Amino acid sequence: MALQSRPERSAPWTYRFYVDVDGTTTDPRLAEALEEVEALAARVVVLGSYEAWIEGSRLSAPPPIPAHHTRKPEVPLVDRRRNPEGSQVSVRHLVFGGEEPVLIAGPCSVESEAMILQTAEAVAAAGGDMLRGGAYKPRTSPYDFQGLGVKGLRYLADARERTGLPVVTEVLSWEEVAVVAHFADMLQVGARNMQNFTLLRAVSRSGKPVLLKRGAGATIEEWLMAAEYILAEGNPNVVLCERGIRTFERATRHTLDLNAVVMVRERTHLPVIVDPSHAAGLRSLVTPLSMGSLAAGACGLMVEVHPDPAKAMSDGEQSLDIPMFAELARRVHPGRTRGMGSRLA
Amino acid sequence: MALQSRPERSAPWTYRFYVDVDGTTTDPRLAEALEEVEALAARVVVLGSYEAWIEGSRLSAPPPIPAHHTRKPEVPLVDRRRNPEGSQVSVRHLVFGGEEPVLIAGPCSVESEAMILQTAEAVAAAGGDMLRGGAYKPRTSPYDFQGLGVKGLRYLADARERTGLPVVTEVLSWEEVAVVAHFADMLQVGARNMQNFTLLRAVSRSGKPVLLKRGAGATIEEWLMAAEYILAEGNPNVVLCERGIRTFERATRHTLDLNAVVMVRERTHLPVIVDPSHAAGLRSLVTPLSMGSLAAGACGLMVEVHPDPAKAMSDGEQSLDIPMFAELARRVHPGRTRGMGSRLA
Amino acid sequence: MALQSRPERSAPWTYRFYVDVDGTTTDPRLAEALEEVEALAARVVVLGSYEAWIEGSRLSAPPPIPAHHTRKPEVPLVDRRRNPEGSQVSVRHLVFGGEEPVLIAGPCSVESEAMILQTAEAVAAAGGDMLRGGAYKPRTSPYDFQGLGVKGLRYLADARERTGLPVVTEVLSWEEVAVVAHFADMLQVGARNMQNFTLLRAVSRSGKPVLLKRGAGATIEEWLMAAEYILAEGNPNVVLCERGIRTFERATRHTLDLNAVVMVRERTHLPVIVDPSHAAGLRSLVTPLSMGSLAAGACGLMVEVHPDPAKAMSDGEQSLDIPMFAELARRVHPGRTRGMGSRLA
Amino acid sequence: MALQSRPERSAPWTYRFYVDVDGTTTDPRLAEALEEVEALAARVVVLGSYEAWIEGSRLSAPPPIPAHHTRKPEVPLVDRRRNPEGSQVSVRHLVFGGEEPVLIAGPCSVESEAMILQTAEAVAAAGGDMLRGGAYKPRTSPYDFQGLGVKGLRYLADARERTGLPVVTEVLSWEEVAVVAHFADMLQVGARNMQNFTLLRAVSRSGKPVLLKRGAGATIEEWLMAAEYILAEGNPNVVLCERGIRTFERATRHTLDLNAVVMVRERTHLPVIVDPSHAAGLRSLVTPLSMGSLAAGACGLMVEVHPDPAKAMSDGEQSLDIPMFAELARRVHPGRTRGMGSRLA
Ligand SMILES: C=C(OP(=O)(O)O)C(=O)O
Ligand SMILES: C=C(OP(=O)(O)O)C(=O)O
Ligand SMILES: C=C(OP(=O)(O)O)C(=O)O
Ligand SMILES: C=C(OP(=O)(O)O)C(=O)O
Ligand SMILES: [Mn+2]
Ligand SMILES: [Mn+2]
Ligand SMILES: [Mn+2]
Ligand SMILES: [Mn+2]
Repeated sequence: MALQSRPERSAPWTYRFYVDVDGTTTDPRLAEALEEVEALAARVVVLGSYEAWIEGSRLSAPPPIPAHHTRKPEVPLVDRRRNPEGSQVSVRHLVFGGEEPVLIAGPCSVESEAMILQTAEAVAAAGGDMLRGGAYKPRTSPYDFQGLGVKGLRYLADARERTGLPVVTEVLSWEEVAVVAHFADMLQVGARNMQNFTLLRAVSRSGKPVLLKRGAGATIEEWLMAAEYILAEGNPNVVLCERGIRTFERATRHTLDLNAVVMVRERTHLPVIVDPSHAAGLRSLVTPLSMGSLAAGACGLMVEVHPDPAKAMSDGEQSLDIPMFAELARRVHPGRTRGMGSRLA
Repeated sequence: MALQSRPERSAPWTYRFYVDVDGTTTDPRLAEALEEVEALAARVVVLGSYEAWIEGSRLSAPPPIPAHHTRKPEVPLVDRRRNPEGSQVSVRHLVFGGEEPVLIAGPCSVESEAMILQTAEAVAAAGGDMLRGGAYKPRTSPYDFQGLGVKGLRYLADARERTGLPVVTEVLSWEEVAVVAHFADMLQVGARNMQNFTLLRAVSRSGKPVLLKRGAGATIEEWLMAAEYILAEGNPNVVLCERGIRTFERATRHTLDLNAVVMVRERTHLPVIVDPSHAAGLRSLVTPLSMGSLAAGACGLMVEVHPDPAKAMSDGEQSLDIPMFAELARRVHPGRTRGMGSRLA
Repeated sequence: MALQSRPERSAPWTYRFYVDVDGTTTDPRLAEALEEVEALAARVVVLGSYEAWIEGSRLSAPPPIPAHHTRKPEVPLVDRRRNPEGSQVSVRHLVFGGEEPVLIAGPCSVESEAMILQTAEAVAAAGGDMLRGGAYKPRTSPYDFQGLGVKGLRYLADARERTGLPVVTEVLSWEEVAVVAHFADMLQVGARNMQNFTLLRAVSRSGKPVLLKRGAGATIEEWLMAAEYILAEGNPNVVLCERGIRTFERATRHTLDLNAVVMVRERTHLPVIVDPSHAAGLRSLVTPLSMGSLAAGACGLMVEVHPDPAKAMSDGEQSLDIPMFAELARRVHPGRTRGMGSRLA
Repeated sequence: MALQSRPERSAPWTYRFYVDVDGTTTDPRLAEALEEVEALAARVVVLGSYEAWIEGSRLSAPPPIPAHHTRKPEVPLVDRRRNPEGSQVSVRHLVFGGEEPVLIAGPCSVESEAMILQTAEAVAAAGGDMLRGGAYKPRTSPYDFQGLGVKGLRYLADARERTGLPVVTEVLSWEEVAVVAHFADMLQVGARNMQNFTLLRAVSRSGKPVLLKRGAGATIEEWLMAAEYILAEGNPNVVLCERGIRTFERATRHTLDLNAVVMVRERTHLPVIVDPSHAAGLRSLVTPLSMGSLAAGACGLMVEVHPDPAKAMSDGEQSLDIPMFAELARRVHPGRTRGMGSRLA
């Protein structure tokens, strides 16, 4: 059992608890516990039940022997020598590390139901493969928009329903892993959390594929070792994402480290993609950087797209508008007929 | 109530749950709940009960209205204009931001009961003011020593008992805040977690004073806004700690950013100290950097000390040995008679 | 007239003076001056006479009104608005900024007559467009090999003779501009000299096309303003070269700044190429970075190639061997029949 | 003989040649040569004659055997093991590396005769030890004020005459070394020229003490090797100056690298000072950084001072005004009676 609480975003003085119970819905002990919770809480909503991904490895079950109790392997789990051909990571029907680059697109933040549906439709129509959008946003200032939380997750799931695009979204803290994993197809660990080791272990145990962004101040070695934390905890499905590092150059938000993309491909079997939006911070750079990243060997892209970038609640200056994204998608998937995107048959 | 679990460090396949209950020990509902927990768990230890630091603001109580529900204040809470004289933060009998610099010292990691006691005795004898030591260690590799966990906390508390030195130690994740706050006098948020916003909110609500390290890749603005998260959540007792940033210079581990120390003093009323050990990564630089930091306006220092640096389980190359620390303490507190340290009467 | 002297590299206690005379070979005043020089010098060699590239603008003639005597133009000379189509820079039969990428290759240093001829032959045979090689080497240590000087220039000219490949080579100081310009087709200003403004003015007045490398610690703005120095002094033929910047990442020698390549193309009409060899410092990264750079919009590449990288006198670890270069050339110029290279008919 | 020419700053289309002749003023060959020069030039001014600093080592004489012709020494010339006590460098009556810190102050640029005299008087009165001021300015844009050239040098010499303050000023290119050395007491090699090896050799041969600034993108190792170039060319009188490096922090112009100051003192016997003005870029940081630098072991400071910073032609935001400088000087030289400064008796 994992009991999780967070301040409810839409009402002050109210807490929302996520109770992630390891058991079957018919277990009487579970019913009893739910009753007790209902006594304490204003309102209880059963989000549903779901299968554990691998026997014995969900959040609250005893995990496989934790890595730090094991001996360091001769060859790290991320090391390319463990799979010289390169690993593939599947997210629904998509494959990272396969023949085709995977094009992830969507807004920085899920701002409303309408906007995420509109963006998702446009992304699918243009030939995007997967939908992104933040429901939990890591913001520099506590007064900035922090995301719609669970509501945002729900809208993302609705958008997937409509378009067939699998969904990736960021999880900020381990107690949200269960709920994010419930709604999303892939969990994103953001740059600021690359060395939040508790979170790394929790996303690993969720069983969902993980998109691990490189920290803006993290070395290649640290990035790979962060992935090692996830693999060591039992989850092999990690995709790396280079999203720019902090350098002295002030004309761009970060500096895309293409060296790292190439080097990481040498050193690990894990697939690596590029997020040129955060790397550059300026929309006009996104398409050329995308093409450069794929040519250098990235197996996918994650770009921010907004129907009206000037009005975005976050990262507007770096967001493509729909026509710019359509042009990018055309160049990334030149052979593909538009409008057929990744839509499920 | 907050229910927290973590893999027990000393035994695989075992979980330790921390149950932090908001209530009085005479409440029958609490007794009942404990019974139920005992039924599920192999062993239950009541760590004790403690007073809430401020009415209504401990970890599990409804927090003050969260910052993100409030309007952004005209002047941020950290802004120096809110207290042009500069704020003072007290940790037991010590004052950060007062007349005297505060000298924090101790090992990178608590390695054993004997070593932390030995180090603490030496620190106190030499004139150190406060004891540091990591029980939960953020390590780049999952195979590196991750700290002694609760056992380490207990040893730190024992060392305080013996020497009278208040204790600061790092907390890595919000579910450990309650237990760390139970044992320590001050909670350290490490560089890797500077933008772990869940953790920032949790340490705020713990009511304990917080030592907030700057991220190695974080700007001054981001650092101040991280402190703003803590203040906005209701806890005003934040001390900032500059510990070096990532730069191109490869001869040192990080680059001490003395500019930032000075600038931060202009921009915020919060006290700021320097950790020259992590900034330099080499013990021979620690004393000169310490003297320079104090002369530039830092109100304290945190240095790593080890009885036998060559055998340290982490950060040995940057740890002072006891004689080097004694020399530093003599220079930091020139008027003070040795051996009288911070020992309680 | 410009009188230039340098220590002769092959014999201590000996100076070599370069006398660059502005006049006709029939001028009796010139003959007289040469006589006087012969009286003072151990040996006089007339390197030859050459036409001034533009009336009134060679090194020793009164230059066009220096920029700093003119008013700042409304729109800088480098600004893309001055030529929205993008400028082309010709070096003999090659065009930077045209349809085809220009592939420059050669050793870091010209090490001997045999090695530069061998490398040049291989570069031409594989489909390279232009030959590089340092005769004057900027070396961190004064005890490192500093280049063959004029002898190296001569060998480069011989290699051009044999292969038809135009030659680019670095010039370190303004007094060497005349002699380097005499032998080379394009003058390279190295990263360390990007803000050596005397040198920038001198290469401008030489009339030769200039390859301007970005300083490893220089911003995009500074790089463009360095080009502005050259343009303002009268020479419009500048090609920019991104070669990696200094960042905290220690696994690679520098960090290729692909953002900058794209941004510079927006901000200036000047052609921009990439040097992935110095950017990465490791040969295995060179080919993927090359492909990425071209896809992002670079109009050419400069790569280091050595017949036996393990024995190179400088930068061996980042030098491609001949087969690796042949593979790169094949990918850069897919349609081109090998062996036809840039050979003059 | 060294014949040097530069565009005359005050009149376009006019060149000023500096003829630095190695000989005695009674030599008939010299008189003859001067005549010939007079025939070609519009105006000839004899700046004067001066003694060679060391027999056989002035600019135009055969230099000591150049370093690159010698074997690399077992222990580099800069290495602390060559002088564990630390070297002292004298500039007139001042000593770098002695008991007292040396406080250098003055404007970024020499802007006019009146302003440099006014500033020098104020610096001397407040207790400054030495005067700085740029006559040749390295400016990012070719349209920015480039300095007054020789006129500026003359004003500096006049200011020394009046105040007794020795003068340090930057030299940008080797052909200006002779004239700058003629007027100044110490030659400054700027950050942008730290690896302008021709310039390093030329300042070495000038025989004047050299102030070698660290490049903003240069490592400690490169900085020391730049000093090695100067020592290897025969001049042992080098003072190092840390002036901030390029990092990701955007709130300050550069980042003062105090680690480097301390490390350099370990690795070399050469004295090291700090320039907090360029390191911070903001005047309010200058005094605390100064005190911190001295406490960490720097043996001197170089700060920018301007009588009216708001009107400065360069670097006004980082320049102290006179009262701020007076306060700094009081703190740097606490025991010294004001107004007695470095004035010669
Ligand atoms: C916050 C995001 O990214 P990062 O973690 O890379 O900053 C994001 O993808 O919106
Ligand atoms: C890990 C530590 O520090 P930081 O978070 O600054 O790296 C520490 O203090 O031991
Ligand atoms: C020295 C070289 O390059 P850079 O100036 O870019 O370091 C070179 O091209 O060999
Ligand atoms: C230009 C100057 O400094 P730096 O070379 O350190 O930029 C200066 O001292 O004015
Ligand atoms: Mn974003
Ligand atoms: Mn440590
Ligand atoms: Mn090279
Ligand atoms: Mn200046």
